[in-house]
Amino acid sequence: MQESPAGFVLGIDLGGTKMALATAHADGAIIHRQVIATLAGQGAEQAITRVIAAGQQLIEQTQEELGETLVSVGISTMGITLENRVLLAPNVPGWDRLELPRLVRQAFPTNAIRIANDVKAAAAAELRWGALVGANIGLYLNLGTGLAAALIVGERVIEGAHGAAGEIAYNLRHLHEETGFHHQRAPLEEFLGGRAIGERARLQFEGVSTAREIFQLAHTDAAARAFVEATLTELAFHITNLTIALDPERIVVGGGLMASQEIILPRLDTYIKRFVPFPPIVLAAHFTQDAGLMGAIALALA
Amino acid sequence: MQESPAGFVLGIDLGGTKMALATAHADGAIIHRQVIATLAGQGAEQAITRVIAAGQQLIEQTQEELGETLVSVGISTMGITLENRVLLAPNVPGWDRLELPRLVRQAFPTNAIRIANDVKAAAAAELRWGALVGANIGLYLNLGTGLAAALIVGERVIEGAHGAAGEIAYNLRHLHEETGFHHQRAPLEEFLGGRAIGERARLQFEGVSTAREIFQLAHTDAAARAFVEATLTELAFHITNLTIALDPERIVVGGGLMASQEIILPRLDTYIKRFVPFPPIVLAAHFTQDAGLMGAIALALA
Repeated sequence: MQESPAGFVLGIDLGGTKMALATAHADGAIIHRQVIATLAGQGAEQAITRVIAAGQQLIEQTQEELGETLVSVGISTMGITLENRVLLAPNVPGWDRLELPRLVRQAFPTNAIRIANDVKAAAAAELRWGALVGANIGLYLNLGTGLAAALIVGERVIEGAHGAAGEIAYNLRHLHEETGFHHQRAPLEEFLGGRAIGERARLQFEGVSTAREIFQLAHTDAAARAFVEATLTELAFHITNLTIALDPERIVVGGGLMASQEIILPRLDTYIKRFVPFPPIVLAAHFTQDAGLMGAIALALA
Repeated sequence: MQESPAGFVLGIDLGGTKMALATAHADGAIIHRQVIATLAGQGAEQAITRVIAAGQQLIEQTQEELGETLVSVGISTMGITLENRVLLAPNVPGWDRLELPRLVRQAFPTNAIRIANDVKAAAAAELRWGALVGANIGLYLNLGTGLAAALIVGERVIEGAHGAAGEIAYNLRHLHEETGFHHQRAPLEEFLGGRAIGERARLQFEGVSTAREIFQLAHTDAAARAFVEATLTELAFHITNLTIALDPERIVVGGGLMASQEIILPRLDTYIKRFVPFPPIVLAAHFTQDAGLMGAIALALA
């Protein structure tokens, strides 16, 4: 375990729908928390302005009550945050041009500010308090609206040379794939992401429009089961090949699709046991709704 | 760079056909070297007995000439070496039952003995003296009789939880693959390994029986070119997906197939540039014939 700093920390989880923030003790216990809407349609600037104001207020409130000071800030956010822009975050207008590091440096009275991609942050929370505790080599898999992974080596989430390690949304599905990242496409996410699963299901199943609904229907309907099987086989194929390359001791799966974990986990586990030389255990993430926020707090405490 | 020990080291590269060994200075410069046949058909024991005797003789000779002592031994070998057996090394009869660590500990007058898989050792040599110098995150790819990779994170070759990181020979080629490692198969190597390429080519092209020959023929024959294209597209597909997950700054390719690097490297590079969000540079390994031996010396110096 890392050494805990004195005082308290602030964690901020910036999402396309909502932004969650909390002050927390050095052991990760939350002191105060708040959730505000992103209002993505109104652009990035207003969202950041509001979340910073909310953060400042939480800091003030916590300071007054505890008589302690803020020691660090952790921010879990979409995409890859650079000094003057954000890459791979297409869902909030203007987010790509955001100077996020400068804005938060100016806003908060500490130099210890750590910003990371939301999936990597969630993996950091699992490493610190969740299902990845003690895992030297591990794989965290986020099955949500988006699809992404985090690779853990030496009990740390690896960033990659450009902060893009684990961005398997861009994986190729076929040998003769014609378009990918550089054509504004994300081949694997467009098949396996939560939204894509829902959209594909809608074309085939009346009254179904979400991933959750088709997974539910699979319990009783053979065609839905076949649809889900085909979807999970493709997921398992990609995760199996990545698992062979990484040789992790554990695979931890989080994200919104895990509402259907009773279908997803056994399928993944079976495929991995069947094909990976040294099959790791496959288990559900500890953090579900709170993954991003706990990730931000883990970053602040890192 | 690591600190260099005083004295000299011994490196041993154990292969299925030949075994190379050398004493070397702390900077990796070879003092004396020797190559002996493995005689795989005669079993693992006799091979180890002879290579140990040859190593002891080299040590003695080097000691006498330089007045220095042996500080460490590095061994680059097939498969995954455990205390009382060797996994994933099917080509020499009895190798799987070899107590390699004990045998070398008894044979050499040092406790600093490091044993690693040959592809991981070759990657260590590239990291120390070759095409991976300074690469924090990198990917080493061995295209030889066998197919394997080494993942580099934090300027170190990662072992994986069971020493099996990078063993992409076992990758699945298809969504509906039915057999893999646990059925004594290696799906991707059985298509992309040097021996497999040669065997596949022989079925289609008269007078061709090796990978080198079909790559050569591809310069002048359209059908051979199509064969090679299909082969390299499959290689590129797997390496692209692994590259997306790892986000390396560099990909270095070694192994016997690199005799045809003028065909292999551009194809791999094109595919990676086309599909990987942040395409790493792709280049040839520095060490070719000597990769295993220099890997063993790099291990000794690690």
